[in-house]
Amino acid sequence: MPRLPFPELVRELHRILLKHGLPEPRAALVARLFAENQRDGVVSHGLNRFPGFIALLQSGRIDPGAEPERVGGLGALEQWDGRMGVGLWNAHVAMDRAVALAQTHGLGCVGLRNTNHWMRAGAYGLQAAEAGCIGICWTNTIPLMPPWGSAEVGVGNNPLVIAVPRRDGPLLLDMAMSQFANGKLEVLKRQGRELPLAGGFDRTGNLSRDPGEILASRRPLPIGYWKGSALAVVLDAAAALVSGGQASHQIAAQGTEYAVSQVFMALNVTALAGADGVEATVDAIIDHLHTVTPLVAGEAVRYPGEGMLRTRRESLELGVPLEERQWADLRAM
Amino acid sequence: MPRLPFPELVRELHRILLKHGLPEPRAALVARLFAENQRDGVVSHGLNRFPGFIALLQSGRIDPGAEPERVGGLGALEQWDGRMGVGLWNAHVAMDRAVALAQTHGLGCVGLRNTNHWMRAGAYGLQAAEAGCIGICWTNTIPLMPPWGSAEVGVGNNPLVIAVPRRDGPLLLDMAMSQFANGKLEVLKRQGRELPLAGGFDRTGNLSRDPGEILASRRPLPIGYWKGSALAVVLDAAAALVSGGQASHQIAAQGTEYAVSQVFMALNVTALAGADGVEATVDAIIDHLHTVTPLVAGEAVRYPGEGMLRTRRESLELGVPLEERQWADLRAM
Repeated sequence: MPRLPFPELVRELHRILLKHGLPEPRAALVARLFAENQRDGVVSHGLNRFPGFIALLQSGRIDPGAEPERVGGLGALEQWDGRMGVGLWNAHVAMDRAVALAQTHGLGCVGLRNTNHWMRAGAYGLQAAEAGCIGICWTNTIPLMPPWGSAEVGVGNNPLVIAVPRRDGPLLLDMAMSQFANGKLEVLKRQGRELPLAGGFDRTGNLSRDPGEILASRRPLPIGYWKGSALAVVLDAAAALVSGGQASHQIAAQGTEYAVSQVFMALNVTALAGADGVEATVDAIIDHLHTVTPLVAGEAVRYPGEGMLRTRRESLELGVPLEERQWADLRAM
Repeated sequence: MPRLPFPELVRELHRILLKHGLPEPRAALVARLFAENQRDGVVSHGLNRFPGFIALLQSGRIDPGAEPERVGGLGALEQWDGRMGVGLWNAHVAMDRAVALAQTHGLGCVGLRNTNHWMRAGAYGLQAAEAGCIGICWTNTIPLMPPWGSAEVGVGNNPLVIAVPRRDGPLLLDMAMSQFANGKLEVLKRQGRELPLAGGFDRTGNLSRDPGEILASRRPLPIGYWKGSALAVVLDAAAALVSGGQASHQIAAQGTEYAVSQVFMALNVTALAGADGVEATVDAIIDHLHTVTPLVAGEAVRYPGEGMLRTRRESLELGVPLEERQWADLRAM
């Protein structure tokens, strides 16, 4: 796989976004975020998704120039309307605002409604962590999995992010409520491979590691069975309430996913403990994890985000990996 | 199983707590919480745990009269020290404070350190929801499960609560990061029964439904495999940072679980939408869940907390169920 210097990838994406009518400063931000997702190994929301994003820009279904605006709130809790703008831009503005509120109030929370897909959920947690805050954010989605007790799709997979600041690289949890993403199931199915662990139900209702069966049954497994299903429901309700926006069942009624609801929180732990204090606490947790005996000798237990940070370092050193075809496609756009 | 009117159960527990030296208003609160846990069907933190709590009071390991105090913070984010007092009292005071902050600031967050077991995690989420707020809280614990990639116990099961207000009864998520509680495994093992789904690994390293094997291997399954393990780690880090207290690895170094760290958040969604607005949003989510086709005809999909609310109504109508032996033990205490 060829590798491209990170700044060159950013420049190329930036050029394409401007050419397709995304105004500044959105174009610069969106180019950086897509490039960072690819750099960090989150290819599902990197170059794989970029052509689709360009198509979305041209579809007229979103407003590329829309600016999110504050429409209500109390103190450090604000409601913003994304006005059907670019999801990545809206999310970035919202977390930026949550961090600003946390500078003054210790913590801040922004509910964002009428917004669109933010691509990589973790990006906005990292944004808060880079500002010295614990970042917590989640989104609702169109229903993608059955709630526990049903075989009918009825709840979103509602990704949840918790990022903890650390100078050498944050702790990052970035997880959907389904055990495996549909994209992952599709890739493994094409490759004729099985899942490492049960990831859903087959068409006869038994737990299965066969990605084709799970796609056919439309029954991906919620993490922790009933627990992930319940977490998806409360995150949806909280997103709708804090933002004043749509719940998953209302997004479903539209037929396609747009005008979703999101929550962005920042907790200013650096104001409490100082950057050194935060560092010491998190480093001690990491050090302890690294002393736990691994199942496979030599493969130390990893902290959340550790694999991603390793990929990032490699990408910055050797260049960001991308497929030959992807690079050709970008040049032609 | 005999049933006791709820007020009588509260009175009896109150009498015993006063007799064993728990000062007011702690005795009244702790009696109410234990009785409510039993009333709601959370027997693991109801009468099953009450004799142990009395023993703890007498052990000298906690300070029954300690009052938690604010030791730092910024704006709506506060740090409190539980001063090794009664866990249930400290948690109640902390969530009360988070709700008060949310009345003024829209949201509030209290980190609580040097506190002790709060018994039922959900109790404090319900407390916020009854005040019209979304309540989010979590605690760290002594390590109880292996992190993903290890067979050695190294992370807490760090229960997380999200409660969403609703007049007819809140949505309540109350979940530990292990798929099944050790208490549940022990009960099923005694009964010679299997788990309904894989709940951990056996001693040969395979996923298992045998509770005895899982207890023997000390490898309960984190919810969602690596996801629940990662969530446990970030919740631990966040609890330690927000409270300025101990992380799980430090609790482990003590040998037994005390001086844990907790986080309490309240989001004043009633200030944003009004009680009627909150009600309408949550009711629509519940109504939608109830229209999804159930796997078993007649057994409608339940919203998080629905089973608990049904048990509560039954307990209030018919009396709180308890074992004959438990009632005799209480009378003798």
